[in-house]
Amino acid sequence: MAKPSKKANAIKGKPNAALPNAAAGDDTTITALDLKRAALSPAMEAYFAKCSEKLGFIPNVLQAYAFDLPKLETFVALYNDLMLAPSGLSKQEREMIAVAVSSQNRCYYCLVAHGAAVRALSGDPVLGELMAMNYRAARLSKRHRAMLDFAVKVTTESWKIEEEDRETLRKTGFSDRDIWDIAAVAGFYNMTNRVASATDMRPNSVYHAQAR
Amino acid sequence: MAKPSKKANAIKGKPNAALPNAAAGDDTTITALDLKRAALSPAMEAYFAKCSEKLGFIPNVLQAYAFDLPKLETFVALYNDLMLAPSGLSKQEREMIAVAVSSQNRCYYCLVAHGAAVRALSGDPVLGELMAMNYRAARLSKRHRAMLDFAVKVTTESWKIEEEDRETLRKTGFSDRDIWDIAAVAGFYNMTNRVASATDMRPNSVYHAQAR
Amino acid sequence: MAKPSKKANAIKGKPNAALPNAAAGDDTTITALDLKRAALSPAMEAYFAKCSEKLGFIPNVLQAYAFDLPKLETFVALYNDLMLAPSGLSKQEREMIAVAVSSQNRCYYCLVAHGAAVRALSGDPVLGELMAMNYRAARLSKRHRAMLDFAVKVTTESWKIEEEDRETLRKTGFSDRDIWDIAAVAGFYNMTNRVASATDMRPNSVYHAQAR
Amino acid sequence: MAKPSKKANAIKGKPNAALPNAAAGDDTTITALDLKRAALSPAMEAYFAKCSEKLGFIPNVLQAYAFDLPKLETFVALYNDLMLAPSGLSKQEREMIAVAVSSQNRCYYCLVAHGAAVRALSGDPVLGELMAMNYRAARLSKRHRAMLDFAVKVTTESWKIEEEDRETLRKTGFSDRDIWDIAAVAGFYNMTNRVASATDMRPNSVYHAQAR
Amino acid sequence: MAKPSKKANAIKGKPNAALPNAAAGDDTTITALDLKRAALSPAMEAYFAKCSEKLGFIPNVLQAYAFDLPKLETFVALYNDLMLAPSGLSKQEREMIAVAVSSQNRCYYCLVAHGAAVRALSGDPVLGELMAMNYRAARLSKRHRAMLDFAVKVTTESWKIEEEDRETLRKTGFSDRDIWDIAAVAGFYNMTNRVASATDMRPNSVYHAQAR
Amino acid sequence: MAKPSKKANAIKGKPNAALPNAAAGDDTTITALDLKRAALSPAMEAYFAKCSEKLGFIPNVLQAYAFDLPKLETFVALYNDLMLAPSGLSKQEREMIAVAVSSQNRCYYCLVAHGAAVRALSGDPVLGELMAMNYRAARLSKRHRAMLDFAVKVTTESWKIEEEDRETLRKTGFSDRDIWDIAAVAGFYNMTNRVASATDMRPNSVYHAQAR
Repeated sequence: MAKPSKKANAIKGKPNAALPNAAAGDDTTITALDLKRAALSPAMEAYFAKCSEKLGFIPNVLQAYAFDLPKLETFVALYNDLMLAPSGLSKQEREMIAVAVSSQNRCYYCLVAHGAAVRALSGDPVLGELMAMNYRAARLSKRHRAMLDFAVKVTTESWKIEEEDRETLRKTGFSDRDIWDIAAVAGFYNMTNRVASATDMRPNSVYHAQAR
Repeated sequence: MAKPSKKANAIKGKPNAALPNAAAGDDTTITALDLKRAALSPAMEAYFAKCSEKLGFIPNVLQAYAFDLPKLETFVALYNDLMLAPSGLSKQEREMIAVAVSSQNRCYYCLVAHGAAVRALSGDPVLGELMAMNYRAARLSKRHRAMLDFAVKVTTESWKIEEEDRETLRKTGFSDRDIWDIAAVAGFYNMTNRVASATDMRPNSVYHAQAR
Repeated sequence: MAKPSKKANAIKGKPNAALPNAAAGDDTTITALDLKRAALSPAMEAYFAKCSEKLGFIPNVLQAYAFDLPKLETFVALYNDLMLAPSGLSKQEREMIAVAVSSQNRCYYCLVAHGAAVRALSGDPVLGELMAMNYRAARLSKRHRAMLDFAVKVTTESWKIEEEDRETLRKTGFSDRDIWDIAAVAGFYNMTNRVASATDMRPNSVYHAQAR
Repeated sequence: MAKPSKKANAIKGKPNAALPNAAAGDDTTITALDLKRAALSPAMEAYFAKCSEKLGFIPNVLQAYAFDLPKLETFVALYNDLMLAPSGLSKQEREMIAVAVSSQNRCYYCLVAHGAAVRALSGDPVLGELMAMNYRAARLSKRHRAMLDFAVKVTTESWKIEEEDRETLRKTGFSDRDIWDIAAVAGFYNMTNRVASATDMRPNSVYHAQAR
Repeated sequence: MAKPSKKANAIKGKPNAALPNAAAGDDTTITALDLKRAALSPAMEAYFAKCSEKLGFIPNVLQAYAFDLPKLETFVALYNDLMLAPSGLSKQEREMIAVAVSSQNRCYYCLVAHGAAVRALSGDPVLGELMAMNYRAARLSKRHRAMLDFAVKVTTESWKIEEEDRETLRKTGFSDRDIWDIAAVAGFYNMTNRVASATDMRPNSVYHAQAR
Repeated sequence: MAKPSKKANAIKGKPNAALPNAAAGDDTTITALDLKRAALSPAMEAYFAKCSEKLGFIPNVLQAYAFDLPKLETFVALYNDLMLAPSGLSKQEREMIAVAVSSQNRCYYCLVAHGAAVRALSGDPVLGELMAMNYRAARLSKRHRAMLDFAVKVTTESWKIEEEDRETLRKTGFSDRDIWDIAAVAGFYNMTNRVASATDMRPNSVYHAQAR
């Protein structure tokens, strides 16, 4: 029953002065760690240039890893393989897993960046919100519900995963290779959520308004 | 490192066909319960009319309570007192509590509706996201951090609140009346989060795009 | 295998001197907040007088809210609607929910006051104890067990409530309106438990001996 | 704000007919297991007779163990050593630990039986309620608070107990022997709570009204 | 993908000097409490002598209890009855319960001592590891899985044990007496785990290499 | 107080026949997924050959990833960078983090493989056990305790990591680069633990006896 009074703000002619923009600094102070940027290899220079060209910006996670070239390269290789390589899971499905997992871990960076990806890939802004808030409230296909139930169980109590859980996926139509991919994507965000939270990694502010 | 491909969607000329709009039906099937709307009293008729005029829509929570007039009236009275009456807490602060509490309870309705309210009242879209995702990642004043720490502890382990917790608020500048108000607002959303989740209450779809 | 030695205490002629009465002060220092009592409206004066006449005392929660007349009035209206108005749930059933919810939140005020209500309404002192200690240990009808399972799930993990949970209630004979009432009563005590714990609200000492 | 209507029940002339007495059967069907009582040894015969004489009944836990004489004897020996033998902890303190631990484990048998013991030994009925509901709401001496904080941490996350926890007890005046006794009593109820819950052990109905 | 380089250590000619042997002191400083050993009774002298003869050492838990003769004697009696007396559960099964329970409570003493027992009794070193790490990863018979599921539920949420849980055991072939024994052994380690953790009890270093 | 009776087993002349070797099949059925091995690239052929030569076996995790060459290569690159590349953390320290994290997630594969690594690198078998059982029971240097406290908090509640946690590490002597490395190693095992548990990945049986 929110009653936002845009008029009130309009009268004042500016946003609430008591609060700075909450994203202020997110594009310049990317993590809480003081790490000097390494010289990029030609390959990484090219990759950053391609990001700038295609996205209009370089994702902060890349800048965060750029203090050490091998770490940057292995991260990029792993990310690209998991999220972009051929798979029985569509890119949108992989992003849905990313956000549902990040919601369990309450990771600010990943919820912002991958929430935007779900909105853009699905063309459905609300779907991104649902993944970030509570995937159980979304009206999902059986396939997507089973996929996310598995990814979330892998996130919150991986030690209780048993054959029965894999069988549920198989019965929903997932192949063994798909099961690997769900596990691998869920696992990956359980890694990056933690690296991001441990270093206070901040998402590029541009994500917030994307594909709304 | 999300790479939304707006062009790809544009080529297809429409959103991902495999998924319906995730908010589809949210404005018509407001809860999972089949309850017949009661005749509104003149006062409630006037209130609904005022909502339509000021907000452009009637918040779904009001429509959900409208099956029983006394329940609707007591809800409206309680809501208006807690969120709009004079208090040492600004309206924006009360909405910040609403969202931080709803984040703990992963309540879809309240995160959507009150996230929009934080965005509008603060004029800062990112602040709303931070309250919904992880208030600890927001760069808050000491006042706001103490306020939200208390509200969240009240939400997740109220049985452990002791004098020390109240003393922390007093030292940050909150009066005893303010402490009541933080507790009362946090308590209220712990109620509405549960009523909403228990009945699958859906937020008006218009909230999603508000004040982005 | 408790072996209370009443004789030993009798010899000493008084209760254990090392401990003051644990309820000492509960009737005078009602909360930990220093809030000045407001002037009551005639309606509230009459309500307090009726409490004194019928119960022999004014419940401390009313005195706690009496620092602000609108807050007192909305609380009374909400309480009376939820707990006393016509419903498919009997008054005793609503009190059972109150205590089972309060047990999850370990709320001293509500366990004492509503535990007494269950004892009195049911004429069964042990039922009140079971609701406060572990409702699963009570030998309940299917109706009561389903009702309390839902109320407790709403309390501890409301974000996991889904259509399946509502269907279980329907199959046990609850109407959609009953489901709302279970959710609303459970929600209400999740609010009052938190307000009471956040303010260290103390129950009238008279409750302890009632209906034993 | 409970409003028990004794008159309503009085009119009906009997307790709520819809519900049987919740303790019905507790004195005859002592556990959910079908175990045949063994022949008691003369020592155990004498012990049971002494219980009958002093307490007026034989605690159900003794009857539950009576299917196997060695198990009964070792239980009695352990119980008597822990709860009745000389210790730096008074008998009442040991019973306070028993109830606070049983509250964490929501053990119906132990909360009823040892709640009665705290009421009787302290001469303070409310103290027993507080131990069962939320020991943090009790106004305890520093000694008792430290003692129960340790016992409850031992109960809920024993793997996190470290030297610092023991030092807190020592600084409050407990000897190393006292620390052992707190740990041993807390440990014992973590055992009996589980045996009681696993077998649905029921407390003698007489406990409920004792020392109110 | 561990790559232990034994050669590297060999070159240095000794273990990593930066770390003392992690078990150093475990055989001499048995607990963190300063408790003077009591004079043993002839029966306990004989029992200790028998341990020395049969095991080659006196288990530290016995030395820990030896500050008080009645406590030592009741502990020994209880332990011997539960773990060695006739039962429908084999000794190995009782040790499996001991380790699975201790794994939930992360008790260093019990995991080391009883892990060794499982290895020795089963002749299968890996089985001991599985009980300590995650019993769900072990390929168990239905009997053993049901037994451990019950023991672990008794450990982590005993308040949720109901008739259905006992019925599952009965259907797997356990008698009511067996159910008692599973509960009693699980309960016992929930006690000793806590006494051990609360006192920082250290296992004899000899256990580590036993039956590998 | 384990009393392994090696003699009893010796009489039977073989291990307990009721139980197969718990590691049976671990070297042949590496995961629960039916995935066909891909053709290795020359680089990976060489890597596998080097493993065989140096370790005497190919770690099962490599064989599990070998169904897809890019996945294998990125995993190997990431693993080698994190665990073997120059860092302010020694290799042993990185393995200690691996095991402490895996203990929280109860990952059978990683506890076995990296437990062996801690034993081998430290030359101290008990240290490996302590990391797997409860790192808080180990007598650690301040450096190691702070390192593991951070890694475990990153594992269990990464959303609560704040500047204060990083400051604790800095005060203990860790550089910002070291903090990254602790977070990255902890994050990595939070990924691999989940991939291993989700696929029932089994550790090579040879690990169990290594460096005991």
